[in-house]
Amino acid sequence: MIDHRTLRVALLGAGSVGSQVARLLLEHGDDFAERSGASLELAGILVRDPDAPRDVELPRELLTTDAESLIVGADIVIELMGGIEPARTHILTALNSGADVVTGNKALLATHGAEIFDAADQVGASVSYEAAVAGAIPIIRPLKDSLAGDRIARIFGIVNGSTNFILDKMDREGLSAEEAQAIATDLGYLEADPTLDLEGHDAAQKAAILASLAFHTRVSMDDVHREGIENVTADMIEGARRAGFVIKLLAVCERLAGSADDEAISVRVYPALISREHPLASVHGGNNAVFVEAEAAGPLMFYGAGAGGVQTASAVLGDVVSAARRHIAGGVGVGESPRQSLPTAPIGRIMTRYQITLEVSDEPGVLATIAGILVDGGVSAATVEQTVDDEGTARIVIGTHRAREQALGDTVARLAESAVVERVASVLRVEGE
Amino acid sequence: MIDHRTLRVALLGAGSVGSQVARLLLEHGDDFAERSGASLELAGILVRDPDAPRDVELPRELLTTDAESLIVGADIVIELMGGIEPARTHILTALNSGADVVTGNKALLATHGAEIFDAADQVGASVSYEAAVAGAIPIIRPLKDSLAGDRIARIFGIVNGSTNFILDKMDREGLSAEEAQAIATDLGYLEADPTLDLEGHDAAQKAAILASLAFHTRVSMDDVHREGIENVTADMIEGARRAGFVIKLLAVCERLAGSADDEAISVRVYPALISREHPLASVHGGNNAVFVEAEAAGPLMFYGAGAGGVQTASAVLGDVVSAARRHIAGGVGVGESPRQSLPTAPIGRIMTRYQITLEVSDEPGVLATIAGILVDGGVSAATVEQTVDDEGTARIVIGTHRAREQALGDTVARLAESAVVERVASVLRVEGE
Repeated sequence: MIDHRTLRVALLGAGSVGSQVARLLLEHGDDFAERSGASLELAGILVRDPDAPRDVELPRELLTTDAESLIVGADIVIELMGGIEPARTHILTALNSGADVVTGNKALLATHGAEIFDAADQVGASVSYEAAVAGAIPIIRPLKDSLAGDRIARIFGIVNGSTNFILDKMDREGLSAEEAQAIATDLGYLEADPTLDLEGHDAAQKAAILASLAFHTRVSMDDVHREGIENVTADMIEGARRAGFVIKLLAVCERLAGSADDEAISVRVYPALISREHPLASVHGGNNAVFVEAEAAGPLMFYGAGAGGVQTASAVLGDVVSAARRHIAGGVGVGESPRQSLPTAPIGRIMTRYQITLEVSDEPGVLATIAGILVDGGVSAATVEQTVDDEGTARIVIGTHRAREQALGDTVARLAESAVVERVASVLRVEGE
Repeated sequence: MIDHRTLRVALLGAGSVGSQVARLLLEHGDDFAERSGASLELAGILVRDPDAPRDVELPRELLTTDAESLIVGADIVIELMGGIEPARTHILTALNSGADVVTGNKALLATHGAEIFDAADQVGASVSYEAAVAGAIPIIRPLKDSLAGDRIARIFGIVNGSTNFILDKMDREGLSAEEAQAIATDLGYLEADPTLDLEGHDAAQKAAILASLAFHTRVSMDDVHREGIENVTADMIEGARRAGFVIKLLAVCERLAGSADDEAISVRVYPALISREHPLASVHGGNNAVFVEAEAAGPLMFYGAGAGGVQTASAVLGDVVSAARRHIAGGVGVGESPRQSLPTAPIGRIMTRYQITLEVSDEPGVLATIAGILVDGGVSAATVEQTVDDEGTARIVIGTHRAREQALGDTVARLAESAVVERVASVLRVEGE
């Protein structure tokens, strides 16, 4: 049954994902041969230091520091080094020498995606990147192929496992941000420099990739409005809980309503309130989940492990088998060229619901003053709750109807200046409704 | 940007899905041209009666009763007639004349899949069938492509929307089976002959398709152990609720543990208990959700609309765009040939947990007698609860540890014969743990 054609596979990088990919390729070679129709020969593994200690033992003779001779001559190049350079150069070399590329490099795709996809188009090769977004969860291929006959209106989801782990710990165990972060660091959820996760850079890279694919346009990292979880406090999480919400770091990609000649999209990452009834509320720990709302298909959800070496290796190897099948079947790769050039709207143009928490002076007429500022600002309140805590701090929590971010921001600024408002404790967007 | 090659598309059937596919192809022709790289020309629509009234108005000149001349000369044939014949003959004609086939025909694939996939392999054409399982939810392509580099251990899920609607109504509104079924019929969830859904035939067809794909083997409808929801009563649902469970009609496909030369799979459909904490418990109404447990990827869930004309049309059109891309790119289709021939084990070989509800005589020593029968049968009890209701009926509810179905069945038979047991009220399997 097996076509004895052999395809040479070059692996760049042997970190937590790369070493699992190598192990699975070596251990399950027969399975891959059966599934792809070709023997996959792991020709070599590019590493910085062949003698460095590794979690997974790899055959010493496969390790090399010579990128050029490994890449040229390979049929499939798997790039799992991360970072921009030298990954970018290696991928371009691979494409130009006729190889298909499989990568999990979200940072590279979110900044240099256009260049790489153009290079692939020119030679008729494919670039696959299922592992770049949401780890093991098949989301790229469903967007690219399964929903190719539909029109996507909105994608929103939890695409960063580390911050979800922290927010979940805070929500379920009442921990402070510092405590939850310390546990995440201990368990290896956070890197030594945790800002990539905490400030939402990682989620923003994934949002740019998802939006590019969903809307057939080019979205780069810089187009993404980004807020991280640095300012989310235990108090905010407790307040959210009392109101029936949970706080999640969400990536949102949506088409904005507008006339045909005014089409635009919004791509953003921020901590937002989600109803406890919403399926995303029960995404715990380091898991990821992505909602896709398509015009014909309706809402779809994809859920699973968002990270982890062996889990992400599954996504990489699915792409490798597809690339191998393409080599055997012949034909050119399906291009990634965006066919639309939709502007990314500034955050001020989005519309959503908001929850505003104000600390106010505890005196008569406060509510009337605040209500007046809201009316003047064109922001309509759906719920208003006034509380006084044990320390005598009076708070007003306002849940708004859908409002334009610009109007909301202006109104909050006016509230902050008002004599009756002592402090704007928090302003949170409400998503998933 | 657009390659002006035109592909001829033949549509067989204009029911609820077919008419939506036709509408979307006609209305969004430009989108499809951009996405697939070719203009898709709807060459004709095969119908039984061109003058029959339809929900969606279709151009009269496209409607035809002449299958042969529509199919021969088409590049892509979309089969949405349902049933075995003449669908089978039309698909074979299409493949033999070089067309790619897209179908949503689960009954045909679950019975004649082998013949159809072999025919496609021989001519290098593709047969796609995303719409055959779980409506709009992308599940076929993720199994076939995204998880091609992984090894699937288990699939279980809710794949029949009608029965989920009925069970959900019974659970959430306390309705009887008859009441819930009447509402489902009124809302169009059930056909005039509802047995296809209620007795689990529809779910079993989908289970056969999923198992074939997941385990790279051939599973037909006849290999599937099937129990429907006909015997699920309001009492059983109420009992499940008290114990923290919900009853769902589940399709389960799993590899059975065993030595390498004793490999086997189990494919089954039955109403089972699921913990209320499990994500499947919150799949309401006519929705579907499928869990996939892969060795490397871990658990993944796919959720969305399980039926509906326009929703299912999304899945069909995704397949159409992929088939069109393949035509443009060249190369042969990825074959479906199973590479393993795994036996399907009889239901007696599976292992799971069970909940047994017995009506017993209310006298001393009953529990000891029952415990003795369980021990003799090799079935270990995890929980035992004894209750007496307002009418004086004494019940014992036993939750078992994992047991082999064969041993469980023998033990239940012995319980039924015991003098202290008046009636075996229900035996339910517990899944998702």
